[in-house]
Amino acid sequence: MSLLIRGATVVTHEEHYRADVLCADGLIRAIGENLDPPADCEILDGSGQYLMPGGIDPHTHMQLPFMGTVASEDFFSGTAAGLAGGTTSIIDFVIPNPQQSLLEAFHTWRGWAQKSAADYGFHVAITWWSEQVAEEMGELVAHHGVNSFKHFMAYKNAIMAADDTLVASFERCLQLGAVPTVHAENGELVFHLQQKLLAQGLTGPEAHPLSRPSQVEGEAASRAIRIAETLGTPLYLVHVSSREALDEITYARAKGQPVYGEVLPGHLLIDDSVYRDPDWATAAGYVMSPPFRPREHQQALWRGLQSGSLHTTATDHCCFCAEQKAMGRNDFSRIPNGTAGIEDRMAVLWDAGVNSGRLSMHEFVALTSTNTAKIFNLFPRKGAIRVGADADLVLWDPQGTRTISAQTHHQRVDFNIFEGRTVRGVPSHTISQGRVCWADGDLRAEPGAGRYVERPAYPAVYEVLGRRAEQQRPTPVSR
Amino acid sequence: MSLLIRGATVVTHEEHYRADVLCADGLIRAIGENLDPPADCEILDGSGQYLMPGGIDPHTHMQLPFMGTVASEDFFSGTAAGLAGGTTSIIDFVIPNPQQSLLEAFHTWRGWAQKSAADYGFHVAITWWSEQVAEEMGELVAHHGVNSFKHFMAYKNAIMAADDTLVASFERCLQLGAVPTVHAENGELVFHLQQKLLAQGLTGPEAHPLSRPSQVEGEAASRAIRIAETLGTPLYLVHVSSREALDEITYARAKGQPVYGEVLPGHLLIDDSVYRDPDWATAAGYVMSPPFRPREHQQALWRGLQSGSLHTTATDHCCFCAEQKAMGRNDFSRIPNGTAGIEDRMAVLWDAGVNSGRLSMHEFVALTSTNTAKIFNLFPRKGAIRVGADADLVLWDPQGTRTISAQTHHQRVDFNIFEGRTVRGVPSHTISQGRVCWADGDLRAEPGAGRYVERPAYPAVYEVLGRRAEQQRPTPVSR
Amino acid sequence: MSLLIRGATVVTHEEHYRADVLCADGLIRAIGENLDPPADCEILDGSGQYLMPGGIDPHTHMQLPFMGTVASEDFFSGTAAGLAGGTTSIIDFVIPNPQQSLLEAFHTWRGWAQKSAADYGFHVAITWWSEQVAEEMGELVAHHGVNSFKHFMAYKNAIMAADDTLVASFERCLQLGAVPTVHAENGELVFHLQQKLLAQGLTGPEAHPLSRPSQVEGEAASRAIRIAETLGTPLYLVHVSSREALDEITYARAKGQPVYGEVLPGHLLIDDSVYRDPDWATAAGYVMSPPFRPREHQQALWRGLQSGSLHTTATDHCCFCAEQKAMGRNDFSRIPNGTAGIEDRMAVLWDAGVNSGRLSMHEFVALTSTNTAKIFNLFPRKGAIRVGADADLVLWDPQGTRTISAQTHHQRVDFNIFEGRTVRGVPSHTISQGRVCWADGDLRAEPGAGRYVERPAYPAVYEVLGRRAEQQRPTPVSR
Amino acid sequence: MSLLIRGATVVTHEEHYRADVLCADGLIRAIGENLDPPADCEILDGSGQYLMPGGIDPHTHMQLPFMGTVASEDFFSGTAAGLAGGTTSIIDFVIPNPQQSLLEAFHTWRGWAQKSAADYGFHVAITWWSEQVAEEMGELVAHHGVNSFKHFMAYKNAIMAADDTLVASFERCLQLGAVPTVHAENGELVFHLQQKLLAQGLTGPEAHPLSRPSQVEGEAASRAIRIAETLGTPLYLVHVSSREALDEITYARAKGQPVYGEVLPGHLLIDDSVYRDPDWATAAGYVMSPPFRPREHQQALWRGLQSGSLHTTATDHCCFCAEQKAMGRNDFSRIPNGTAGIEDRMAVLWDAGVNSGRLSMHEFVALTSTNTAKIFNLFPRKGAIRVGADADLVLWDPQGTRTISAQTHHQRVDFNIFEGRTVRGVPSHTISQGRVCWADGDLRAEPGAGRYVERPAYPAVYEVLGRRAEQQRPTPVSR
Repeated sequence: MSLLIRGATVVTHEEHYRADVLCADGLIRAIGENLDPPADCEILDGSGQYLMPGGIDPHTHMQLPFMGTVASEDFFSGTAAGLAGGTTSIIDFVIPNPQQSLLEAFHTWRGWAQKSAADYGFHVAITWWSEQVAEEMGELVAHHGVNSFKHFMAYKNAIMAADDTLVASFERCLQLGAVPTVHAENGELVFHLQQKLLAQGLTGPEAHPLSRPSQVEGEAASRAIRIAETLGTPLYLVHVSSREALDEITYARAKGQPVYGEVLPGHLLIDDSVYRDPDWATAAGYVMSPPFRPREHQQALWRGLQSGSLHTTATDHCCFCAEQKAMGRNDFSRIPNGTAGIEDRMAVLWDAGVNSGRLSMHEFVALTSTNTAKIFNLFPRKGAIRVGADADLVLWDPQGTRTISAQTHHQRVDFNIFEGRTVRGVPSHTISQGRVCWADGDLRAEPGAGRYVERPAYPAVYEVLGRRAEQQRPTPVSR
Repeated sequence: MSLLIRGATVVTHEEHYRADVLCADGLIRAIGENLDPPADCEILDGSGQYLMPGGIDPHTHMQLPFMGTVASEDFFSGTAAGLAGGTTSIIDFVIPNPQQSLLEAFHTWRGWAQKSAADYGFHVAITWWSEQVAEEMGELVAHHGVNSFKHFMAYKNAIMAADDTLVASFERCLQLGAVPTVHAENGELVFHLQQKLLAQGLTGPEAHPLSRPSQVEGEAASRAIRIAETLGTPLYLVHVSSREALDEITYARAKGQPVYGEVLPGHLLIDDSVYRDPDWATAAGYVMSPPFRPREHQQALWRGLQSGSLHTTATDHCCFCAEQKAMGRNDFSRIPNGTAGIEDRMAVLWDAGVNSGRLSMHEFVALTSTNTAKIFNLFPRKGAIRVGADADLVLWDPQGTRTISAQTHHQRVDFNIFEGRTVRGVPSHTISQGRVCWADGDLRAEPGAGRYVERPAYPAVYEVLGRRAEQQRPTPVSR
Repeated sequence: MSLLIRGATVVTHEEHYRADVLCADGLIRAIGENLDPPADCEILDGSGQYLMPGGIDPHTHMQLPFMGTVASEDFFSGTAAGLAGGTTSIIDFVIPNPQQSLLEAFHTWRGWAQKSAADYGFHVAITWWSEQVAEEMGELVAHHGVNSFKHFMAYKNAIMAADDTLVASFERCLQLGAVPTVHAENGELVFHLQQKLLAQGLTGPEAHPLSRPSQVEGEAASRAIRIAETLGTPLYLVHVSSREALDEITYARAKGQPVYGEVLPGHLLIDDSVYRDPDWATAAGYVMSPPFRPREHQQALWRGLQSGSLHTTATDHCCFCAEQKAMGRNDFSRIPNGTAGIEDRMAVLWDAGVNSGRLSMHEFVALTSTNTAKIFNLFPRKGAIRVGADADLVLWDPQGTRTISAQTHHQRVDFNIFEGRTVRGVPSHTISQGRVCWADGDLRAEPGAGRYVERPAYPAVYEVLGRRAEQQRPTPVSR
Repeated sequence: MSLLIRGATVVTHEEHYRADVLCADGLIRAIGENLDPPADCEILDGSGQYLMPGGIDPHTHMQLPFMGTVASEDFFSGTAAGLAGGTTSIIDFVIPNPQQSLLEAFHTWRGWAQKSAADYGFHVAITWWSEQVAEEMGELVAHHGVNSFKHFMAYKNAIMAADDTLVASFERCLQLGAVPTVHAENGELVFHLQQKLLAQGLTGPEAHPLSRPSQVEGEAASRAIRIAETLGTPLYLVHVSSREALDEITYARAKGQPVYGEVLPGHLLIDDSVYRDPDWATAAGYVMSPPFRPREHQQALWRGLQSGSLHTTATDHCCFCAEQKAMGRNDFSRIPNGTAGIEDRMAVLWDAGVNSGRLSMHEFVALTSTNTAKIFNLFPRKGAIRVGADADLVLWDPQGTRTISAQTHHQRVDFNIFEGRTVRGVPSHTISQGRVCWADGDLRAEPGAGRYVERPAYPAVYEVLGRRAEQQRPTPVSR
């Protein structure tokens, strides 16, 4: 079976041109003008539309056990919602409990993910440290296609990695050619502020952002970046939400350090006033970490995307329904942290970014797909439109509109942080492995169609570092 | 006639892979493993070498009439020297005299350039202002393939453009979709300092850097950038040489402004101590503007390249021989400003950049070719290795070495600012329009083989700006 | 006649303590606990109040001929209004017409100022350049107590100083030990934008801020600062209103350059929405340059005050009544630029600064009086509470309130930019030369009581520069 | 007994003038022209000299038990050496062992300090945390004149304070009105690098700076500053040695945060090449933490002093003799960390700062005395020349010279980091409590003459913070 997309404007991270694109056996087979369709070829009319690499969401948490409950979205429903939104790959997270074997956890997650409707990979979290952890990291890189490890600098008394773990794990990443990533918030400060606010009688969601002010993120970003600088690793910061964290990235990059930042559309568009919504459930629906910020941070984040200080967009898709959120009715610190977004990421970014003139189409492709593929070593298999690449594509209708709502979205959760927002620019068709999975509102996701995608070590972000380290090797003085 | 390069590692600005590359009729025709050579095909063994897009030098001044003399390198000798160094295209400058017709000057330069051995284009300088200038700018963009205009902020009483000209010309560039570029030095301050130093009896080349301190460049960079910001144009700064100018670019880019910076290898590697050389001719040989700087600036420029604040490398190739330089024997301000470099740019940058671990090979390609092609709208015809692109290529021998010297270089000038420097990493073969023009030391440049390359308006750097301006259109208040 | 202020808390720029203060013959004669009043001594009860140095306003324009009319406030009415607000000294501006003798203009202004009710000095503007100007600058410094010269970088075709004038005048300031000051806006850009906006049909006050966006101020600040850096002078920037100009000051100061910034309370508190007021006269009432800015700039300016990047507060007091403003009814660029404020500066800054916790009382004193006295060489004669200093004092009632209004203010103008604002913290008594001139609402200003105050050359801001310049003197190379 | 200093130029942090100064009973009693000496008055001729407030060294470690040995300088010898150098007060450190009572340690140190020849106070280090620690902090503030607490972020497995301790202690400081201070280096990274370097066979002093690169200091500075920002305390950073830490201070201050930085003369003048000295003992003699840095940091620190980002100078005077240093003969991490300097601080800063034109005399006084007095609440009792202040003075001979050497210094240690440096500008006389203790080379220090000086809580650095915190108190949403 093959698929010919005709007459669309192909848009990549660096150019656009009119061409037909032929897919077969899951791959792009030809790009050119007036291609002849093979026999038995499905033909899709792309005229007036943009054909772009399918989105890659590098930050999701499907069916995650967290804060005493489990995220409501599973790997099938979540990846299916992604397809409805133009996203054809995700990188989810294996999060072992402290003291748990990394491999054991990895296999557990692999099992859960079998049902995925689209391709997927895993970052693995380092939540504790021992010789065994170091060895299993090696195993994961060598034999299981994992090239990135995540570190939570927040969530004290749970999965927080303190400095000794960060230092040991980053050093191990360097040995393995893996990319360390961090959730940057100072967990000690967050814990202290939570206790203090609760003691002051502030128990509602309005206390959530007060317990995690932006400098708490800036601090952790600075710390992780300096550890990476000292040891000589690259660094990827997930969900950068504040001017302070952005400033740290900009400062480090200006010194030539390979530091990369990820942004969530929510942090670009939603401000912290939502936590003072008079309806508790609404306010709680927005509870995620880092929290939504005062407006000045949003302007800074947009500028970070424009200037190249920020590189990817993700969702931190982690769904909890109203009854789950209600666990924190009397204590904001017990509200499960997380919001949905995998279905909305691309349309929201297009509407607020491209339609507004803040971003070019090329930047849009880079930020939703190509940069992620490069950083995590999926490029040019993914994130590219070229012969031989995976036929993961999205056909984008720049005139189509959609009003986002939990009533109509495909995400398995009863809340949407973009509720009521009408976007212009939507995916008319999503193609995964050469197969049309989303066609003008018709979702044709298949459980198990998604494949686990191995990501080899030493991605591009390591290319310069090795040689630098070589040359800086110190020599003893003979006396 | 066709050419097959076998077994090299293809290196582009974003990836590398082993492949054969087939060229014919001046274009790349096929890229793949184990390509079959057509009949009558020249075969080049690339094993152990890197095949990269041919270099583009966006800043040369062949046979320029300047400061009372004419640059010694003509369009043939200069482009030939470029081929010897791996550079397959140049963008030179048409510099009308104040009051001279732009078109007249353009045609004069076109005539001079007929003999070029490699492809070329022209920026046109705006050295005065009138309705006629505005009209001729339109003519050049519409009918002559010029999409960039240069402004000298220095050289008072000669070709300096004051603020009123800058403002008018940038506004005109915006209308035309052309890129304004600037030589950023405050000409009033330079003039004042020259007079003051001469009055103090400092007449030798040691006064040259004192008359153009780095803040003088920072000032002009800031001014040009703010004018571009105000009017809504992109901006390209030639030969950024100082931390101050870099800081201005970084500051503007952090706000999302599309500003681009060019660096010369000399500014990356040579410091201002050369101007105190006890040999007058040697000191004078280094006289160019902006001057070489104290070392701290070099570190800053490298970081600018690493962080993405600087985008291209060029040479400002403008040759004057010892007897020409001697015109300023008693007055440093009369020493013709200019140094050579088109033959050395790529090898020097490879050696000091890639060998040292400061830059990856991909960054090297971006900085010597691809970024320039993108900014000035030559991409993907140039700056890319893909089917259909111009067959302008360089086969790079990472183990080859060369000791740079005016005795042996192909540049038509008796001085080399890199004299005695041994570089590792040299072009073994340079291919222009599919023809081998440089082969292991054998220079096969042909006068007139180079073509004038048209550059259409509205290059990528304009993609976002139009929409932004649209949205910011102010509305009157009705009262 | 003497005056004893009893029981107040003395507040200076660096400390506070309970003490009695005795004044006689225009000077402070004693400070101590339980001072005995001499015979015939007026006694003022200061209990519960703060006794601070009288305010110094370094930026006023009394009865200025400008834009085809004359400012409505004269030297008597203006200094009287100052006394009502706690300000006991002003530094006004002599602004010669281009080609006019500086001395002639100076004497004209001296004549106008004879009627002042409080002490005063003059900055002199450099609006053109010639040998005569250079000589008269020397004369003013040597014999007339002028140690500062002002340069307007805006107002093209009127009093704008272009770069050649700036360079020449700053160099002359260095020779004389005088402080160059600038109004930092790029006049070419402002002129261009004015013409463009008018051509687009934007003729109302809403176009005023659009014609002077913040980067236009940032540009000029950068330019003046770099000229000062190059020549080795200190620099004082009047009415810093934007984040961009502040950033330039911060950048220069971080390099150790002696640059000083002045802020107006209006720029700290009023945003640019006022120019879209549906009432033309109201919108026009706010027209001054630089204009009021979007809110983010206000936050930046407060931080500049807190961090020590900004040093003084002033008013640019320049009053035009409604009928004068109406000159620009059909062309915003003809609305006379200027607003009042000398009466309100201190109370507004106290209320918005000290009451809010943004500033300490000591910072308040520094920002309203002491820093100005130090920069312009009036310290410790003014700006200090110590034995021997001028008895210019303000007794501050931190609990007193006042609602600002053009109906009730003492300024001779029919508009107040702070109309309706209620401030807490007001001067209960103002003492000038040891005489109570304002007592709980009773204004006792006397025409002619004010004295011209000479300001010697080489103020503190020059202390380091001379030696630095000495050491940087270049030497020729002997060849 | 009284003392009259005649004819000197009095120099304070903000002015200078010719005056006689009369001291009696330990205090300054009169300042004026041609003062009449009382009967029985010692008269000192100050003509041609500067009379300045005696130096205050806010960072010394006399007879400190550290790293398995005890600092060789005791409270008498150390304060005596200070008097020989113009320093009349010190603030030393009480450093309890983890688990030790703060009060117990405090009393131990008080006992040791009885023999001091000059006035002294104590910071108290927080090396562990418990309810008892919190209570004893309160006790020390309320009853023992301690208003500052020190936190070592380095020295893992010894006295390092991790984040939980920092957060708890800073919060307690806020309650008490005490100033938290930090030694900013990331102890986890230092420990990791030490182990790594030793494992690589780098055991000599050349490994010391490699184990503590500048970003390790930048990280800790950032962390402490953000914790202070979050909790609302001021912060004082001891021995700022790197551009990175300075950048953090500058960044925070630009946001209005009250952060203060201290510099040691060694970090201004000595670079890290000393650690590669072929003589082990020499290299080891320079071992202190943070280490001496590459030159670019020195330039940054000078600019920090000029710009007001850095506020005080100190010495970290902590002496270890060659045989003590030899404890680390085979393991650089066991070399006792510390160098001397109390005798040299002022002359070195004058010579390198004032003579070079980098600093004015007023800045010199602020940096050696007045700023420290203000920050730690000793002003105006100390750090000022005014009637009623302590008669702690230094008479400075700007023409006197001295060649620094361990052979001739009064410090009880056999090494001097400034060995061989000749300085111009020396204290001719030092006056403590109105008594001449150093007179042209004659040291008249008396054991026990020094007094413990209480420092009340809520110094000036707290003045604004309280009100700010008040206003930011969050309110719950009623739902």
